[in-house]
Amino acid sequence: MSIDKLTGAKVAEHNSKDSCWVIVHGKAYDVTEFLPEHPGGQKIILKYAGKDATEEFDPIHPPDTLDKYLDKSKHLGEVDMATVEQEEKAFDPEENDRLERISRMPSLAACYNLMDFEAVARQVMKKTAWAYYSSGADDEITMRENHAAFHKIWFRPRILVDVEHIDMSTTMLGTKCSIPFYVTATALGKLGHPEGEVVLTKAAHQHNVVQMIPTLASCSFDEIVDAKQGDQVQWLQLYVNKDREITRKIVEHAEKRGCKGLFITVDAPQLGRREKDMRSKFSDPGSNVQGTGDDIDRSQGAARAISSFIDPALSWKDIPWFKSITRMPVVLKGVQCVEDVLRAVEAGCDGVVLSNHGGRQLDTSRSGIEVLAEVMPALRERGWEKRIEVFVDGGVRRATDIIKALCLGAKGVGIGRPFLFAMSAYGLEGVDRAMQLLKDEMEMNMRLIGAASVEELNPSLVDTRGLMGGHSGNAPYDTLGLGAYDPLEAPRFNEKPKL
Amino acid sequence: MSIDKLTGAKVAEHNSKDSCWVIVHGKAYDVTEFLPEHPGGQKIILKYAGKDATEEFDPIHPPDTLDKYLDKSKHLGEVDMATVEQEEKAFDPEENDRLERISRMPSLAACYNLMDFEAVARQVMKKTAWAYYSSGADDEITMRENHAAFHKIWFRPRILVDVEHIDMSTTMLGTKCSIPFYVTATALGKLGHPEGEVVLTKAAHQHNVVQMIPTLASCSFDEIVDAKQGDQVQWLQLYVNKDREITRKIVEHAEKRGCKGLFITVDAPQLGRREKDMRSKFSDPGSNVQGTGDDIDRSQGAARAISSFIDPALSWKDIPWFKSITRMPVVLKGVQCVEDVLRAVEAGCDGVVLSNHGGRQLDTSRSGIEVLAEVMPALRERGWEKRIEVFVDGGVRRATDIIKALCLGAKGVGIGRPFLFAMSAYGLEGVDRAMQLLKDEMEMNMRLIGAASVEELNPSLVDTRGLMGGHSGNAPYDTLGLGAYDPLEAPRFNEKPKL
Amino acid sequence: MSIDKLTGAKVAEHNSKDSCWVIVHGKAYDVTEFLPEHPGGQKIILKYAGKDATEEFDPIHPPDTLDKYLDKSKHLGEVDMATVEQEEKAFDPEENDRLERISRMPSLAACYNLMDFEAVARQVMKKTAWAYYSSGADDEITMRENHAAFHKIWFRPRILVDVEHIDMSTTMLGTKCSIPFYVTATALGKLGHPEGEVVLTKAAHQHNVVQMIPTLASCSFDEIVDAKQGDQVQWLQLYVNKDREITRKIVEHAEKRGCKGLFITVDAPQLGRREKDMRSKFSDPGSNVQGTGDDIDRSQGAARAISSFIDPALSWKDIPWFKSITRMPVVLKGVQCVEDVLRAVEAGCDGVVLSNHGGRQLDTSRSGIEVLAEVMPALRERGWEKRIEVFVDGGVRRATDIIKALCLGAKGVGIGRPFLFAMSAYGLEGVDRAMQLLKDEMEMNMRLIGAASVEELNPSLVDTRGLMGGHSGNAPYDTLGLGAYDPLEAPRFNEKPKL
Amino acid sequence: MSIDKLTGAKVAEHNSKDSCWVIVHGKAYDVTEFLPEHPGGQKIILKYAGKDATEEFDPIHPPDTLDKYLDKSKHLGEVDMATVEQEEKAFDPEENDRLERISRMPSLAACYNLMDFEAVARQVMKKTAWAYYSSGADDEITMRENHAAFHKIWFRPRILVDVEHIDMSTTMLGTKCSIPFYVTATALGKLGHPEGEVVLTKAAHQHNVVQMIPTLASCSFDEIVDAKQGDQVQWLQLYVNKDREITRKIVEHAEKRGCKGLFITVDAPQLGRREKDMRSKFSDPGSNVQGTGDDIDRSQGAARAISSFIDPALSWKDIPWFKSITRMPVVLKGVQCVEDVLRAVEAGCDGVVLSNHGGRQLDTSRSGIEVLAEVMPALRERGWEKRIEVFVDGGVRRATDIIKALCLGAKGVGIGRPFLFAMSAYGLEGVDRAMQLLKDEMEMNMRLIGAASVEELNPSLVDTRGLMGGHSGNAPYDTLGLGAYDPLEAPRFNEKPKL
Repeated sequence: MSIDKLTGAKVAEHNSKDSCWVIVHGKAYDVTEFLPEHPGGQKIILKYAGKDATEEFDPIHPPDTLDKYLDKSKHLGEVDMATVEQEEKAFDPEENDRLERISRMPSLAACYNLMDFEAVARQVMKKTAWAYYSSGADDEITMRENHAAFHKIWFRPRILVDVEHIDMSTTMLGTKCSIPFYVTATALGKLGHPEGEVVLTKAAHQHNVVQMIPTLASCSFDEIVDAKQGDQVQWLQLYVNKDREITRKIVEHAEKRGCKGLFITVDAPQLGRREKDMRSKFSDPGSNVQGTGDDIDRSQGAARAISSFIDPALSWKDIPWFKSITRMPVVLKGVQCVEDVLRAVEAGCDGVVLSNHGGRQLDTSRSGIEVLAEVMPALRERGWEKRIEVFVDGGVRRATDIIKALCLGAKGVGIGRPFLFAMSAYGLEGVDRAMQLLKDEMEMNMRLIGAASVEELNPSLVDTRGLMGGHSGNAPYDTLGLGAYDPLEAPRFNEKPKL
Repeated sequence: MSIDKLTGAKVAEHNSKDSCWVIVHGKAYDVTEFLPEHPGGQKIILKYAGKDATEEFDPIHPPDTLDKYLDKSKHLGEVDMATVEQEEKAFDPEENDRLERISRMPSLAACYNLMDFEAVARQVMKKTAWAYYSSGADDEITMRENHAAFHKIWFRPRILVDVEHIDMSTTMLGTKCSIPFYVTATALGKLGHPEGEVVLTKAAHQHNVVQMIPTLASCSFDEIVDAKQGDQVQWLQLYVNKDREITRKIVEHAEKRGCKGLFITVDAPQLGRREKDMRSKFSDPGSNVQGTGDDIDRSQGAARAISSFIDPALSWKDIPWFKSITRMPVVLKGVQCVEDVLRAVEAGCDGVVLSNHGGRQLDTSRSGIEVLAEVMPALRERGWEKRIEVFVDGGVRRATDIIKALCLGAKGVGIGRPFLFAMSAYGLEGVDRAMQLLKDEMEMNMRLIGAASVEELNPSLVDTRGLMGGHSGNAPYDTLGLGAYDPLEAPRFNEKPKL
Repeated sequence: MSIDKLTGAKVAEHNSKDSCWVIVHGKAYDVTEFLPEHPGGQKIILKYAGKDATEEFDPIHPPDTLDKYLDKSKHLGEVDMATVEQEEKAFDPEENDRLERISRMPSLAACYNLMDFEAVARQVMKKTAWAYYSSGADDEITMRENHAAFHKIWFRPRILVDVEHIDMSTTMLGTKCSIPFYVTATALGKLGHPEGEVVLTKAAHQHNVVQMIPTLASCSFDEIVDAKQGDQVQWLQLYVNKDREITRKIVEHAEKRGCKGLFITVDAPQLGRREKDMRSKFSDPGSNVQGTGDDIDRSQGAARAISSFIDPALSWKDIPWFKSITRMPVVLKGVQCVEDVLRAVEAGCDGVVLSNHGGRQLDTSRSGIEVLAEVMPALRERGWEKRIEVFVDGGVRRATDIIKALCLGAKGVGIGRPFLFAMSAYGLEGVDRAMQLLKDEMEMNMRLIGAASVEELNPSLVDTRGLMGGHSGNAPYDTLGLGAYDPLEAPRFNEKPKL
Repeated sequence: MSIDKLTGAKVAEHNSKDSCWVIVHGKAYDVTEFLPEHPGGQKIILKYAGKDATEEFDPIHPPDTLDKYLDKSKHLGEVDMATVEQEEKAFDPEENDRLERISRMPSLAACYNLMDFEAVARQVMKKTAWAYYSSGADDEITMRENHAAFHKIWFRPRILVDVEHIDMSTTMLGTKCSIPFYVTATALGKLGHPEGEVVLTKAAHQHNVVQMIPTLASCSFDEIVDAKQGDQVQWLQLYVNKDREITRKIVEHAEKRGCKGLFITVDAPQLGRREKDMRSKFSDPGSNVQGTGDDIDRSQGAARAISSFIDPALSWKDIPWFKSITRMPVVLKGVQCVEDVLRAVEAGCDGVVLSNHGGRQLDTSRSGIEVLAEVMPALRERGWEKRIEVFVDGGVRRATDIIKALCLGAKGVGIGRPFLFAMSAYGLEGVDRAMQLLKDEMEMNMRLIGAASVEELNPSLVDTRGLMGGHSGNAPYDTLGLGAYDPLEAPRFNEKPKL
């Protein structure tokens, strides 16, 4: 059989723009013609021309990518991997330090809250993976504001309420959940863990919460659905393709596979510039001061590379079409002001997610929780609060954050990054523990606020005056701006005594 | 006689789950059957199975605990301590450093204010004791806000008032006190000082202030009452037991022993998760990354271990019963919004303590002083301000804090942790000096605000606009969240010159 | 002649409580009977019993003190100083470092603003002198707020105003001044400079500004008046003595010597506890953990020592008497709310100084500039703004601060500490340069705000909305409280790799 | 020919106040009589008396300066430069470090935003040049507020808007621009780059944006105009000379050379004191503690040296005259409150620039963006918003800043320092990349806010409540004041154990 296999040497001959072969999972592919179409730019492919690209390929592309996007004629067949020359990796002191830190990493039992996973992940994740997950738009002010905004809302707890039995279960889009959060969609799960998003699927099952399946997953959609157990519920997050037929197929397929909600992302007509991500990919070419043109424009980080298909022309006119192609509830993900929530009701949407995309898109856009405080009174005024389910995501780290959102009127909250960090550092056990910690916190904090069930959470239990001041005085600092500032100095003492 | 005594070797045989004996204060006890009932989990007991557990036992359990909770048949009698093998303590570099710091600790005279005791205690207390006393709920935002909130209230002093003679005495629940603070209830006094709460009893007597006796004291209730001198007044702080008969006995006994006030804690249906406390107990087991199950769930810190008896079903319906079993004034401790104060008046309570339990229960609950500013106008509007005495605790560190509370309408303030820290660092002399410092500050500051007596303190002397803004821009930072954040960086300079 | 002189040996015999002689400026005094009356406590005198006390005595006591307060019979006459044993000073590493810093101190020309003098003085002044000058009450929040408050007021400059000729002169209490500030009274000038307050007298003359003479000067009142030149104007700051006859004599003498204003300090019925000052005096006695009683109570810093004569019973009833004993304008110094300003008008006072005593008395009392914004609208509403002159002191460091105060309606501002720091670091030249810098800034900033003369400064030129928020979110931090706080930690990585 | 040249030795003889020759660009000049008139003081010239002053002369003086201001009779002709003694430069460790940093500087491709250029420039620019560009008035509070103010404005983006095609072009004063910013006037371009302002001219052409030509350029006006390409548009920034005929000539010449707008600077009747700039020039003379008089008053930094001709008497009365001498639109640059904008409309001005001169003039004056929020509603109320074009400059660093200004009603924004920093670090390529980055950000952020063209930007897209609070709690810190403050300390532990 191995007679039929290609040799490493043979593949290695096709190492240029003119003829470019690459190996992925033991098979060779001719990507010469595909080069100019590659959303991530041709440069990154050419780096692996004639070589094995599996390691770089995997986290960014679902396994069915090559089947879908590369004509069968370009599938060159198996490679005898024994004949492929192993590239010796250059010694990388940063990577070395990381491996050393992994050898000393704290045990899972030392994590007591969701921030702890992030602190550990920051030390043990690969630099580029950490940068992709942790980065936000521009100065990351909105990203930090998302959590900080919860600290502007304070509790007004009630005492002497019988809180022996706490029922934190609720219903979202008709699905009963054990606790009012869901696992929101986040891209490229394999950057953090070799198994990718299915880890989250398993944890969601263990804790009876809904998982939202991302369009830009590292696993294929079907892999994630296949990982579902029992009557576990999943939703579909959708980036709308310029080619609507592709979108139609995705939606119909998701409905057929049992998805119970369609979350159309509306805050990302173009995926964000995230400088931490961009910088993490960058290795300084040295004397290339000129550095204009091609070199510069392509190092845009993972986000830009994977999203070129998204349709920036998507508009309100498209909503009826979505409602026509599916019976799943249609939810707009990424609504950011009350005007658009009212319009969503009028357009017949079943829900909205108040979200700024985890602070990854438009900097100094407001937090979902702040928008919620603007939205709910307007809905109640019109008697519309039952016509639409309102969700919030962004910055949720504590059960108190969840409770605040529910007091203000949210049906549930989405949590993304914290589970990615738990997964990246500790795998399924990490995500399991993260969810369990939230449940422990939730039970205690509902007791302490004096509410025995989710229905009892209401606006009189919170003090939101802190949100009224807008953003006077409490925007997170711009670290870049402050870093570039040269503080004033007092007179300097001389180095030597005067004569 | 020593023939009758058990030998260390004999006890040491019973060192397992199947037969578990422990030595406490020179006597052996068979706790095998008690293991599953132990509120702190069986693990901690098994660590001492067959050994002397006195040192660990003492601060957490009042001396009458074994008599009360362990059947006499399990009391195995005296042990010949000479035959008990002394365990050699492993060298602990942190403990070593602590002892070295103690040898250099500042003299008491170098403490000029209540924060100074805390700064010294932090250096000289055992790590776990410090963690138990100093920890707060979740991100400790409320714990820090408690003191910070006083800084949002500013003085509007009056000049040219005759302040030669300052009378800072007042009356609380009918008791004349030399200054308007009381020693509020705090748990586990022996963690800080071998004599425990009686140290506070003695200091309270020296300064003619009331002491509130905690349910969860290290000393027994009677020990604390026995330490009382002259006509010294004490109050009882009560965690209500699920078994109301136990509660009835405690209350009746307290009244018989002369307690003059019953403070029912209403902000703690479940005792808080305090991560600093939990983390201090934790020693990383190393490679146990999985670490699920039993290992994790039990390391919940001292607070959870000692509080399992508290009844989370306690409700307004129980108040009439309390009033029926005692003639002591009934005060609700831990009220956190105006609605519940009004309800307390209607329920016939004699007082309320506006408190968030020292920031140890629900994080981002508001400070007592902020709630006071909400409560008093509502009481005055109804003409109810004489029907109930309003106390505040949490964050009081300066006489100016006391004065602010009294200006706003409080009858007195409770002070807890600062006296624990003074006691832990310097014993009775420390607490004595702490109280004297408060009196010195109080005399001066009443002069400076232009009030010769407590009656002259009134709302026109303070500017509370700083409280109106809610919590916009001045929530204490979440150190965990900020610690996990990876700041943006400017371009890095290369390590070597470019060629 | 030397036969008549006492010998050092003779004096040295009287070195105890029972017979205590001290040498001051080459003369011996028997202070045995005076010991219990010494305002600073007897301990500090006994330290010098039988020895030369001149160095310690000088900065704290005006030269006429011994003549005034010690009966002539106790003046023992001259001492043959050659026979007095020179005490060898113990090596003090801090003092050594200070002298080394002095040898390297920046030249005067390197000081570009008033903060620069403070930064230099902090490095070159004696520790205790620096502590006395720089310290404030309690947490020094008010002290820092004083300057910070100016930063809540922003300019609304006018353009295209002819500002070629800037006239910054004005009139205060009938005296023409070259610029609207005066040198306010500050105590113990010899701590900073051997010549004491007369340095300020000379600088005030050079710049044609008024000097306010302090009651607690190191120089005697007459020395300071004698240093006056030409038609230079001085005012008298008065601490009112319990013995009103003493006060009457002081006032009458001041008027006779030409003082043009009587500033009665009304914010200091008792002088403040300033912990930085107290701590600077303290040398830890070592093992004296008990340290109660006498040792502790006396180390109260300079402020308490020198102020025991001040009458805390001073009240509004005394104002008519003051007006009856002098024709000088009567000004209340230290008014802190609008109610008292209105009352001062009604009492016929000629002026008020809105001041919190440089943040040295009551902490979290409001800044003078904030009180000014409260006061002036109330005066204007009543048409009283011409009936009284309103001054402000505290925190003035920039000409912009002066301009803000004048825009809001102040007649002038007092500046104290900055000139002390300039004097302590650089002597008369320092104070001269400090005043010149203010004039340079003033000329420029009046041009830039578009006002050619002091009369053109008015409220429409400033935006004071920043003061409206009270103190929400912008109180200076309490460094002690934050220092004692133990921040939460993320999970610790193990020190060694796990096996 | 070289016989006619002067020798270095000959020139070197004239090295004093009495006869002072200097060499500039190979020619000698007799400046003896000019010394007292030199705006920067005679001291700086005397430093080069008898020597070659070219290097110091160049950045501060346009090449035509000597022709314009020094009588031809003082032009002494060419110098044989081979005979001029080369001064050996003293070893300067700071300069050495700077050169070392330049050898390692990041490549241009590593700059992802405008702050990055500033961070690099800070490391690679000459100390005095950096100080001149980066310094602001007094405590630099306004300078920092300028950018910080944008962070008080938050977005309210709209979703589901077709943003496939983004048109960010607009029109300013009749000129079509590719993006709504212009290169605002900044002085002394050669401090940052040997070619000076023409670098900006070239970059402006590449990106089709307007350049405003500064009066105080290092290049001559004509050099900058000559560098113009195609139909590129330039404006003239004007400091008005006391001699109006000079001003008239400048204006008329500019119009003739094709300038399309006249921007009269109205916020600088005197150029600012910028202490960072002053300090950078200062080298401590050592023991000169007295240091009064001449030494001190002249070291005022570059700004003061070059601006003595500016007329502080300029007033509203002059506006008609300007309108009479030119057909260019007349725009007032440096308006700072709504009253003056209304007056500008009435005076028939074509535009205003809301600006505080980059925070370089009056400290604690408000940011342009804050003034804009005050101005536009007043204009709209009167229906005047089309009668005048409103520009803003100061603190613009991100496309989001530009969008915020346009949402509030600005026609465009000026950007100055960021391009200087880009030019100083990376030359033309740097400025090119800086502009391209802004365009990239602009396209993305317009997509994300849901506006396909500049016309769609409107006030409903921003939340400006953060500006309402005035400056409560969010003034940038005064680093000098905080630096001079001596924080309180907790009790110090002894250095050695007590006995």
